Amino acid sequence: MLNFEFCSPTHFVFGKDTEAKTGALVKQYGGTKVLIHYGGGSAVRSGLLDRVEKSLTEEGILFETLGGVQPNPRSSLVYEGIDLCRKTGVDFILAVGGGSVIDSAKAIAAGVLIDGDFWQYWETKTPVPASLPIGTVLTIPAAGSESSHNSVITNEKTMVKRGTTGQCLRPKFSVLNPELTFTLPAWQTASGASDIIAHVLERYFTNTEDVEVTDRLCEALLLTMVHETPRVIENPTCYEARANIMWAGALAHNNVVGVGREQDWATHALEHELSALRDVTHGAGLAVLFPAWMEKALPHNPKLFAKMATRIFGIENTGDDTETGRLGICAWRDFFHTIGMPSTLRELGMKEEDLPYMANRLMLKKDGTFGNFIPLTPADAEEIYRACF
Amino acid sequence: MLNFEFCSPTHFVFGKDTEAKTGALVKQYGGTKVLIHYGGGSAVRSGLLDRVEKSLTEEGILFETLGGVQPNPRSSLVYEGIDLCRKTGVDFILAVGGGSVIDSAKAIAAGVLIDGDFWQYWETKTPVPASLPIGTVLTIPAAGSESSHNSVITNEKTMVKRGTTGQCLRPKFSVLNPELTFTLPAWQTASGASDIIAHVLERYFTNTEDVEVTDRLCEALLLTMVHETPRVIENPTCYEARANIMWAGALAHNNVVGVGREQDWATHALEHELSALRDVTHGAGLAVLFPAWMEKALPHNPKLFAKMATRIFGIENTGDDTETGRLGICAWRDFFHTIGMPSTLRELGMKEEDLPYMANRLMLKKDGTFGNFIPLTPADAEEIYRACF
Repeated sequence: MLNFEFCSPTHFVFGKDTEAKTGALVKQYGGTKVLIHYGGGSAVRSGLLDRVEKSLTEEGILFETLGGVQPNPRSSLVYEGIDLCRKTGVDFILAVGGGSVIDSAKAIAAGVLIDGDFWQYWETKTPVPASLPIGTVLTIPAAGSESSHNSVITNEKTMVKRGTTGQCLRPKFSVLNPELTFTLPAWQTASGASDIIAHVLERYFTNTEDVEVTDRLCEALLLTMVHETPRVIENPTCYEARANIMWAGALAHNNVVGVGREQDWATHALEHELSALRDVTHGAGLAVLFPAWMEKALPHNPKLFAKMATRIFGIENTGDDTETGRLGICAWRDFFHTIGMPSTLRELGMKEEDLPYMANRLMLKKDGTFGNFIPLTPADAEEIYRACF
Repeated sequence: MLNFEFCSPTHFVFGKDTEAKTGALVKQYGGTKVLIHYGGGSAVRSGLLDRVEKSLTEEGILFETLGGVQPNPRSSLVYEGIDLCRKTGVDFILAVGGGSVIDSAKAIAAGVLIDGDFWQYWETKTPVPASLPIGTVLTIPAAGSESSHNSVITNEKTMVKRGTTGQCLRPKFSVLNPELTFTLPAWQTASGASDIIAHVLERYFTNTEDVEVTDRLCEALLLTMVHETPRVIENPTCYEARANIMWAGALAHNNVVGVGREQDWATHALEHELSALRDVTHGAGLAVLFPAWMEKALPHNPKLFAKMATRIFGIENTGDDTETGRLGICAWRDFFHTIGMPSTLRELGMKEEDLPYMANRLMLKKDGTFGNFIPLTPADAEEIYRACF
């Protein structure tokens, strides 16, 4: 196991009707003037925004609102939010929405305290040193931003999508009410589930040996997602399945299951290019790319793939780890298909000419590669893109 | 899933040589004058205490020391620690040791700020409202006190052992260096492992239905412990196995795997009477009692026991959940035996006349029972004690 530090101080308030506690939570964490940041109309139409505003008012907390966050959140709205906060003296950022809203809120929270352009930190993946405190009311279990110290933003001038980190970006509190996810369309539910699964797989595929505890914890979350996702696709108002997914989503990305092991993250890098170029839904892109990445990575450690196949899908080892591992990859393809995800980049609207273009835009390490489980070159990236085109 | 709140803000610093960071961590969390609290001679003999003191001195942090914490830590030393802190102006409590040392440190940290007798909070299980900040350098993975908000103390005047909680009792930081556990004797290693397993089992046996994610997370920790404990018994200096156990121990009791589900805790209550009366090693007592409790609880939910048998020990379901569940209980007995734990109370030094005495000393709820999975009466407790006497 590698040496590590881990600190996940977010206060999770989980369960039915918990959004009514938002005002009290903002007060507890020192907010007096809040920016409520949200996305499209669903938070308005569902009455959620009203309930959150009422809860703030009951605690005597003032607020501004800024809606309009899009999936793959844009830098322009971040700049607008930073200006608004500075002009109105906001001291707490409250995200009401999914991962895009939370990531945008984090960029605003950090940007308010940054001299100059917030984007410099995102573009260069430089950890941000400080931010206003952030709270979240989650509506889509997917990105894990409700528990993570990450934020990913797309600069629409350059169409570059980049993420950065910062311990200050961990939300002070996150309100997780599974009922708020009952109305999610099947596409968003399945894309969110694919994103959660991908967060675990990026940690599962490691060159660090003999890390049984985090192996098992990763597998626990994968088994949960494989079991629960088809249940909610079948029955969108199944509270228990929604609840299991929501807690799995929070734990999949606060790093409790990934500490002490090298992690990969090549597939996320491959996907960010899709989202940046053609505004692909992040989770759907991951569902297409991960099996293709796995095929490329299988020869590097067939034993680990065979273990995954056996432990997640109950596939009996044929005696040949490569063969067993490949059956596991097929099982993932089948699973993503079952929950309604596409299996090709074409279905996601990508064009063949995009493939080399994207491969050459990837952010590389100094040695010209990306990813850790197997270091990949831009040529490898293009091969993976083509394999699932 | 039940509504819940969860916040585990402890900063874990995990890995080789990490005790050298203790001084910097105390400084980061605001300590200027530290009480170093420790147990017997092993922290001194191993040089650990010297290294910790050096690390404090390098950061210009002053300290007092108070050793002598015994297993099943006593209230008398807590009173002494409280006096010492008040007289010398200590503002940070640093525990260097195992669960007993940390629990004692927590009681001192809270007691300094309590008007009157600290014991009133422990005796009545009243959560403590405030405490001095606490840090830990862990030497025995077992109690989970390095991550939990719990503290258990024995009042030697009355020989009553009681625990309380308090969010303030979560350590600000915990230094976890698996190398520090290389020299643990097999008995302490196995007792610690049994305690970790028991913390998970107390959460696993629940009447809350359809909690797949926490079921799977509990199983992940149990599978880890079943796999790794025999490895360290065989090879005490196996870093990886020690590391897997150490991280499992921290996660087994910070409640991340137990939220949203009713928990049992009857077996801990049964064990506390053993430790209070005859100073039994806590984990060893749990290893004897848990299979006996399971036999009593099996008829209440055979399906859950069969699931445990299948998922933890790979036992094929015979078609009869009760029979399969009983095979799982046998597998636990075998496991505890394999790692060198006793299987009877007699081996732990208990006398037959202790059994009704202990059964009648248990702290009961208003309805005259204890435990949640199946509510037990004192008569049930005596039956369980006798079954494993």
